[in-house]
Amino acid sequence: MTISTRACVLHAKEDLRLDAIAVGEPGPGEVRVRIGAGGICGSDLHYYFHGGFGTVRLREPMILGHEVAGTVDAVGAGVTRVAPGDRIALNPSRPCGQCGFCLAGQANHCLDMRFYGSAMRFPHVQGAFAEALIADATQCFRVGAGISVGQAAFGEPLSVALHAVNRAGALLGKRVLVTGAGPIGSLTVAAARHAGAGEITAIDIVDATLAGAKRMGADRTINVATTPEAMAEFEKDKGYFEIVFEASGSAKAVAQAIAVAKPRATLVQIGVGGETPVPLNLLVAKEIDWRGSFRFHEEFATAVDCIASGAIDVLPLLTETVPIAEAARAFALASDRTRAIKVHLGFA
Amino acid sequence: MTISTRACVLHAKEDLRLDAIAVGEPGPGEVRVRIGAGGICGSDLHYYFHGGFGTVRLREPMILGHEVAGTVDAVGAGVTRVAPGDRIALNPSRPCGQCGFCLAGQANHCLDMRFYGSAMRFPHVQGAFAEALIADATQCFRVGAGISVGQAAFGEPLSVALHAVNRAGALLGKRVLVTGAGPIGSLTVAAARHAGAGEITAIDIVDATLAGAKRMGADRTINVATTPEAMAEFEKDKGYFEIVFEASGSAKAVAQAIAVAKPRATLVQIGVGGETPVPLNLLVAKEIDWRGSFRFHEEFATAVDCIASGAIDVLPLLTETVPIAEAARAFALASDRTRAIKVHLGFA
Amino acid sequence: MTISTRACVLHAKEDLRLDAIAVGEPGPGEVRVRIGAGGICGSDLHYYFHGGFGTVRLREPMILGHEVAGTVDAVGAGVTRVAPGDRIALNPSRPCGQCGFCLAGQANHCLDMRFYGSAMRFPHVQGAFAEALIADATQCFRVGAGISVGQAAFGEPLSVALHAVNRAGALLGKRVLVTGAGPIGSLTVAAARHAGAGEITAIDIVDATLAGAKRMGADRTINVATTPEAMAEFEKDKGYFEIVFEASGSAKAVAQAIAVAKPRATLVQIGVGGETPVPLNLLVAKEIDWRGSFRFHEEFATAVDCIASGAIDVLPLLTETVPIAEAARAFALASDRTRAIKVHLGFA
Amino acid sequence: MTISTRACVLHAKEDLRLDAIAVGEPGPGEVRVRIGAGGICGSDLHYYFHGGFGTVRLREPMILGHEVAGTVDAVGAGVTRVAPGDRIALNPSRPCGQCGFCLAGQANHCLDMRFYGSAMRFPHVQGAFAEALIADATQCFRVGAGISVGQAAFGEPLSVALHAVNRAGALLGKRVLVTGAGPIGSLTVAAARHAGAGEITAIDIVDATLAGAKRMGADRTINVATTPEAMAEFEKDKGYFEIVFEASGSAKAVAQAIAVAKPRATLVQIGVGGETPVPLNLLVAKEIDWRGSFRFHEEFATAVDCIASGAIDVLPLLTETVPIAEAARAFALASDRTRAIKVHLGFA
Repeated sequence: MTISTRACVLHAKEDLRLDAIAVGEPGPGEVRVRIGAGGICGSDLHYYFHGGFGTVRLREPMILGHEVAGTVDAVGAGVTRVAPGDRIALNPSRPCGQCGFCLAGQANHCLDMRFYGSAMRFPHVQGAFAEALIADATQCFRVGAGISVGQAAFGEPLSVALHAVNRAGALLGKRVLVTGAGPIGSLTVAAARHAGAGEITAIDIVDATLAGAKRMGADRTINVATTPEAMAEFEKDKGYFEIVFEASGSAKAVAQAIAVAKPRATLVQIGVGGETPVPLNLLVAKEIDWRGSFRFHEEFATAVDCIASGAIDVLPLLTETVPIAEAARAFALASDRTRAIKVHLGFA
Repeated sequence: MTISTRACVLHAKEDLRLDAIAVGEPGPGEVRVRIGAGGICGSDLHYYFHGGFGTVRLREPMILGHEVAGTVDAVGAGVTRVAPGDRIALNPSRPCGQCGFCLAGQANHCLDMRFYGSAMRFPHVQGAFAEALIADATQCFRVGAGISVGQAAFGEPLSVALHAVNRAGALLGKRVLVTGAGPIGSLTVAAARHAGAGEITAIDIVDATLAGAKRMGADRTINVATTPEAMAEFEKDKGYFEIVFEASGSAKAVAQAIAVAKPRATLVQIGVGGETPVPLNLLVAKEIDWRGSFRFHEEFATAVDCIASGAIDVLPLLTETVPIAEAARAFALASDRTRAIKVHLGFA
Repeated sequence: MTISTRACVLHAKEDLRLDAIAVGEPGPGEVRVRIGAGGICGSDLHYYFHGGFGTVRLREPMILGHEVAGTVDAVGAGVTRVAPGDRIALNPSRPCGQCGFCLAGQANHCLDMRFYGSAMRFPHVQGAFAEALIADATQCFRVGAGISVGQAAFGEPLSVALHAVNRAGALLGKRVLVTGAGPIGSLTVAAARHAGAGEITAIDIVDATLAGAKRMGADRTINVATTPEAMAEFEKDKGYFEIVFEASGSAKAVAQAIAVAKPRATLVQIGVGGETPVPLNLLVAKEIDWRGSFRFHEEFATAVDCIASGAIDVLPLLTETVPIAEAARAFALASDRTRAIKVHLGFA
Repeated sequence: MTISTRACVLHAKEDLRLDAIAVGEPGPGEVRVRIGAGGICGSDLHYYFHGGFGTVRLREPMILGHEVAGTVDAVGAGVTRVAPGDRIALNPSRPCGQCGFCLAGQANHCLDMRFYGSAMRFPHVQGAFAEALIADATQCFRVGAGISVGQAAFGEPLSVALHAVNRAGALLGKRVLVTGAGPIGSLTVAAARHAGAGEITAIDIVDATLAGAKRMGADRTINVATTPEAMAEFEKDKGYFEIVFEASGSAKAVAQAIAVAKPRATLVQIGVGGETPVPLNLLVAKEIDWRGSFRFHEEFATAVDCIASGAIDVLPLLTETVPIAEAARAFALASDRTRAIKVHLGFA
């Protein structure tokens, strides 16, 4: 039976509409999901406020969103992984499973990736800010009845953080710095704590954001806009931090990260940006190991486990759940770092 | 018995003098070495032509040079490692052996390093472009009588190349790119070949330099100044090279390296530079692993072994050996990439 | 001022005496420590009940013990690391700091190691089951006033567990098995939990021991003596566990570990034994990565931090603290796995 | 057009017959190959002389063989990778491409692997000692017209050796020991040399075999049957070799390998055997990293490249090419280590 639902469709910059969408029956191996909550991510904000980022541009109407969770509504033939009524987090990645990257365990680099709410390819891959959608069963991860859709919708951004931690290797007892304490930075604080980091320092330029990092387990937070001098001590003896997660994409943060990193430190770059000036001399002289971290792969399962077991509590980062009828207000709120960390859209 | 010798002392920018230096007897654990040949390195050229580099400035007269080889003249008490008459390559590094980095097997990051011919600390560490000097026995590495001092003087730059290869991890069967085919780049070609690289491409903007890389074992060389379009094919399917050695320090080469690197590629940064614009988006999206490589440590022994055994033939890179009396001409020649790859000073 | 103290000196198999020992003033860089508690370890039991293990034999009277904590009594010239009155855990390792292993960051393989209470060298290295002793300041790690000497004395065995975890690499989200749930096995459970393991199974042949592993964070415990069939499910699809810590040294456990390990699993061997039959075919066919883990190095600092911060609670493993006057009873208790996990000697 | 060919079919222990086999047209994506040469491997010998190994038993007639090369006879629809007339090495592995191991880049652990000439599954996977067969195009690797089928048939065993080297990580400048100098051991010598090993020692109990290792690049060979005392010097200072490849599967060799391995050495186990006694104490005390190495994956392409480019010359290991009509003699010869290293069957 086809059901009538609404979805948040971006038609053009700042032109987001609640369009009616008919969602049919799930086919073999498919699942129909009633979405309950969806987190607004930086890329959603870029599409909404700027119509894209870098060379990626919105060229046709696209449903936004990729951080979602909900409840299984119906399952297609052969699906045993989930059953109607199950609360699930939804993995927005659908790699091809056949290219060289997929066969090398690096599906996040799939040459034919379909990722919810992305205008990187044309036709665009429609997103998940919708009351219902059809997904592959393999995208559905049960969280248990005791977990809210709001918690479960953190599965995706927590996967990003866990992937960054995996890119860093073992953290046990290590001195960790996180630069940029937004949702990803703060979830990385939590993920690093969970992975046994010895001490965790988070820096940012907004106090409200740093308060979030503190709630997620940072031992020390520094507002480098108001107290930049606090970083000087970490430059002594060639540097202090053994692992740095750069989650801001800011050139200043990159330079600061390299300045306070110990020789042979690993610097995991999560934040994106365009051409960014980098002190090449220091990168070389300290033999920094600077690794990009892009999305996630097997970490989605780990993220859901961490949320489901209570090992990582994500709720301290949830600022507000805004009904989709007020989506415009939600996007405005989500774009204001002084007021919001993570904003969710609530689906009826 | 003290001996009278001459040394190449830089008194100021372009003011290099052959000063008389008295060299005494070696003390316990020390060795007096008659230097035979010394390679002019990029840092020597910076001191000579610019009086320093970055924030490092010549503040007192300093003997230049750190790529040297010679013959043991006399040994102090307790020295068994070498004997008078032995031909040796001289390791210009003298780490403290006691700091945290030395005790972690990372002596190239020693907090109290003394490296020949360096104005990084004051008083400066005097260099090795001298007819004789006193060294610690541990700095002396026998090369065998069949190896010339000219070959042996490549021990230091080959160590730099081998260290870069070690920073990259296993190369067996891998597709390797070397950007910048000067002495270090070309020695890195040879080192990568020696480590079993599958195929090696070298790029540069000077044909004469690329010819050197070819002689050292590159399978393919590309002049990216005259045929930049040749790189396009390597950008397909997100990138081609699994390992890149960036040996130029040029922003353009860094961008090119990232563009043709495969996702999850390792990019070893050997070349130094100041603030360099980097395409952060690509670094993240491809999850590039960008590692600085600084000097060397245990690779000095490996380099000497490779030269002594004939596993790596360094002579195709030697442009000319210039008598120290003509040092100014040697420095001018060494600074002209169209005419010279490696220039040696010859000590009588 | 010299003080009179008593120490637990083993004169021969089962001949442990409380001998009077005079302890002088600490010299430069030294610290006099009043020992508060000392854990009895498997090697202590071997000396006590068998006079040694393998080829190592007691050849002269030796103070036993290396898992100790206490209070700083006096400090020698130049000591700033600790002050009188500080509660400390005492690192029983004193590597030479000069051999190739020490300079490679592998001090646990030091060629001239002095480790408390060890008859591996002659004269033996005296142990730390004494009311007071002189240590190097570098061996002393402050735990804070809120931590008991009983907790602090777990610093050493927890270091062993943390080192094993470090040998395994990153554990984040991984399926972990611990075979042998004695003190080291159970501390490894806690260390793996702290490092973010996804799920942890502990197996043993004694229920009381497994109860300890459960208290330290195991998700699942299996008594393989009473329910060996419970392991069969883990052999499906070539194996289940991604990381195994073998803490028993039993041939049966090794075979079981390899049977349930997934291809490419890492098997960290902590438990020791003599010639042990190993199914070589499976080791090869599954490409198991079997790594020995011996003592610890930088993990001592991490262990103390984990205890001091409360990140790891070690007390669930402490069975009883027995006054040194009843040392014989303490050793008997410690050797009975059905009654005891960790037994401490209490020093007045 | 179907062609009539003969194949070496093992009907029972020592009952090998040249049976007539009809080979049809290649289907889409398939290739018909005229086999030219096939190397007899240890597993072929086990099937032939013992009817199997371990629990694997011949249960129906099976064509033996998996080390083969030949010429493309005809290609099916859509095949562009090779063309009729191409000389190729044939990869005997056909992983499923869909299981978790295949998707993790570990296809050698495929849960549904089909490997030529293996009785591990039933019906058995027929082997490649046949005048012609149908293969998937992806199994075919062109070697170039200048390479003989005899050289190309080394593609498979060389892949095994290269995989072992990859399991060891970077070898540059390292001290390497190979225990067991049969075909795999000697090819591992060559592969280690190609990967830049510093020095390579091979040990065995047969002089003729050691001579093969020498021809493949070993610096030093030791007959441990006739001069066992020669190994003593390598046990000093806890051990000498940084990397050991154990290619014999003998308990004695394993014990010897561990005795002369340096602490933290990597010991790659290639040779198979049943329950093998292992000195667990040493494995732990030296923190040996003992890694199984099983078959190969991407190394097949590397092996073919090394043979095709001349980087590794395999012919010094080829003892004789025996016509299939004399297969029984070939198997007898191949089983005699004093007379043979690698024996090939020649197909008309």
